[in-house]
Amino acid sequence: MKRIKLTVAYDGTDYCGWQVQPNGITIEEVLNKALSRLTGEEIAVTGASRTDAGVHAEGNVAVFDTSSTIPPERFACAVNPLLPEDIVVVQSEEVPTDWHPRRQASVKTYEYRILNREMPDPLRRRDAWHVSFPLDKEKMCLAASYFVGEHDFRNFCNIHTGAKTTVRTVFSLDVERAGDLITLRISGNGFLYNMVRIITGTLVEAGRGFRSPESVKELIKGENKGKTGATAPPQGLVLKSIEYGGK
Amino acid sequence: MKRIKLTVAYDGTDYCGWQVQPNGITIEEVLNKALSRLTGEEIAVTGASRTDAGVHAEGNVAVFDTSSTIPPERFACAVNPLLPEDIVVVQSEEVPTDWHPRRQASVKTYEYRILNREMPDPLRRRDAWHVSFPLDKEKMCLAASYFVGEHDFRNFCNIHTGAKTTVRTVFSLDVERAGDLITLRISGNGFLYNMVRIITGTLVEAGRGFRSPESVKELIKGENKGKTGATAPPQGLVLKSIEYGGK
Repeated sequence: MKRIKLTVAYDGTDYCGWQVQPNGITIEEVLNKALSRLTGEEIAVTGASRTDAGVHAEGNVAVFDTSSTIPPERFACAVNPLLPEDIVVVQSEEVPTDWHPRRQASVKTYEYRILNREMPDPLRRRDAWHVSFPLDKEKMCLAASYFVGEHDFRNFCNIHTGAKTTVRTVFSLDVERAGDLITLRISGNGFLYNMVRIITGTLVEAGRGFRSPESVKELIKGENKGKTGATAPPQGLVLKSIEYGGK
Repeated sequence: MKRIKLTVAYDGTDYCGWQVQPNGITIEEVLNKALSRLTGEEIAVTGASRTDAGVHAEGNVAVFDTSSTIPPERFACAVNPLLPEDIVVVQSEEVPTDWHPRRQASVKTYEYRILNREMPDPLRRRDAWHVSFPLDKEKMCLAASYFVGEHDFRNFCNIHTGAKTTVRTVFSLDVERAGDLITLRISGNGFLYNMVRIITGTLVEAGRGFRSPESVKELIKGENKGKTGATAPPQGLVLKSIEYGGK
């Protein structure tokens, strides 16, 4: 029995998120079916990040156990023909049989894309949030700076989070503008449920002038509960990568 | 009666091209229906560029005549709610009633996007051509340079072209690489049927080392008929803009 680690990319537009659920098709379910068909075994993957409906990934991570004789690094090419074109396994490799994608230190990096112009762009409707009012990038950068470091992010998660602690460390949060496109890039040791999307909604309020950049400081200190920005919509969010220290 | 000029953006993935045809839904047809509904008149637009199935636009141009009292510059905002989200009218303005989008000098600019890496990217499958073998950007740039200028492009069009002359002027053809993404950007006074996609296929052969960059010179002189590269697929192509001198 071997444990195989997959790096998985997907366009989440047409899925009800990562995790198997009764009400619609999910990434996990489609992967399970394709890997089961490939190996002739009953495969159930374990994912690193259970992304929400409509959220995308360039580098989510999943593992599964198999007795297949397919060489570990060949699984990516072998399974891709059995997957729809909006899910791609970009890499596969063997890991120790006790290696678990959620039970060790990692650096997760997300990007959130905002199309900031008056009119929507039909080619970006699946991977960017269209914000039609002008956003001040400098104010967003200043507000973003307060998120960096170890903080209690309890104000920045959905109340349905099941996390034991709401303390997380944000290593970096950069705001860049290229033409009409504003890209937020955030790296951290973990993110609470909806945390990146609530941070994005809050930065957009700062960029619009609806709150001062400094007001973020109080939210991070745990005060002003419920005064964050609204949760930004899912289509702008992409899980870029998950880096593991040991493996 | 007024003539209104529209600038139209669309994701061409789910359409059988611009022009009304019996076998499937087209951009022109959807625009006609939405404008007819908006004005209560029978509207039939005239487009500048009849893009193929799967080809996108950020700035195609169309005109129509109307007696509507809607202010010309308000048509964009008025019609967008009646359009599906993969078609957006980004601008509208009044033009003289004899203004025709195909009967005067213009500069058309297209972009062709190539995703050049081993694995496909599910988020780019609708707007880029995935080429998995390595491409040499410098060779592509050199080959591209020979296209610039006034030439007889009869080797670079589909034989079904109905054009009276196959002489066209290419003002610029730039090849840029940013990470995995190679972008070709071409401007000219007009393009024959499939011309940009055949040029792209030919540049990819040069980048792959299947032909010398210099071999393009003979093709442009009208020799070696039929020895161009294959027509690149439609999804990488975007009509960026059409600039009119007078208007």
